[in-house]
Amino acid sequence: MVLDAWNAKVNQLDKLVSELSDEQLMQEVAPGRNRGIYLLGHLTALADSIFPLLGHEKLALHLFNPFVLTPDKQTGDLPPVSELRQDWTKVKTVLAEKIAAVSPDEWFQKHTAVSEEDFAKEPHRNKLNVILSRVSHVDYHLGQLQFLKPKQ
Amino acid sequence: MVLDAWNAKVNQLDKLVSELSDEQLMQEVAPGRNRGIYLLGHLTALADSIFPLLGHEKLALHLFNPFVLTPDKQTGDLPPVSELRQDWTKVKTVLAEKIAAVSPDEWFQKHTAVSEEDFAKEPHRNKLNVILSRVSHVDYHLGQLQFLKPKQ
Repeated sequence: MVLDAWNAKVNQLDKLVSELSDEQLMQEVAPGRNRGIYLLGHLTALADSIFPLLGHEKLALHLFNPFVLTPDKQTGDLPPVSELRQDWTKVKTVLAEKIAAVSPDEWFQKHTAVSEEDFAKEPHRNKLNVILSRVSHVDYHLGQLQFLKPKQ
Repeated sequence: MVLDAWNAKVNQLDKLVSELSDEQLMQEVAPGRNRGIYLLGHLTALADSIFPLLGHEKLALHLFNPFVLTPDKQTGDLPPVSELRQDWTKVKTVLAEKIAAVSPDEWFQKHTAVSEEDFAKEPHRNKLNVILSRVSHVDYHLGQLQFLKPKQ
């Protein structure tokens, strides 16, 4: 159920991003707020950060600093939207493969950022819970990104 | 994990709503978009709609038409924000009690809006999955409602 929800959200984001032009993605989602490009980079970097939790290398490490650690409009040298679209597609595609390869039991094992001691006390800090929290996180920003589309 | 996520989202929404004044909730979250009051009513009505899926009566049936079936700003007679705040508090409080009373096994039974035939084919259409999808739905609008707070 959680993996279905993740895949559905990824597809929803993918569809929205494909419907937005590069120009639209350069706009702020609301006055004074994050731009579309920032949210796309942010969501790509956060999806990318799932890889290490499952025991894999990140694919888009270079996005973490500008799109997660740095607020929007505080760094001048963001990659172009066209490049970000490619990063997003690569991350979501490979991530889907890696997620599909995880066995049911494995989802309930601890993710790599939790110590054995903590996991013994808090067994909900497992791999599946990371995906669960990321589903919701995508939706949080989807609601904002959607403002870049003209009002129907 | 899903119930923890639901409770955390409810608390997050609750905190945000308590930090927003009635005047702030009367504002649009972005130019031409839904007002805070509409999103509060919408999220209350959708939380309320979980009751029947668990076999209980709705507590705020009167909110469904103006806040779910009707778009914002197309009906003149919305309840005052103060009343909506009370509805929200009542719904979230009673819902938390009802949710806590559901047994683990019961969560994986079909919700009342699914037929036996469909459920046999699609066992993920269970009660827990309703909560899962609502967690994400709350986050979708939380990301928008948060725009009513002054930018830090």
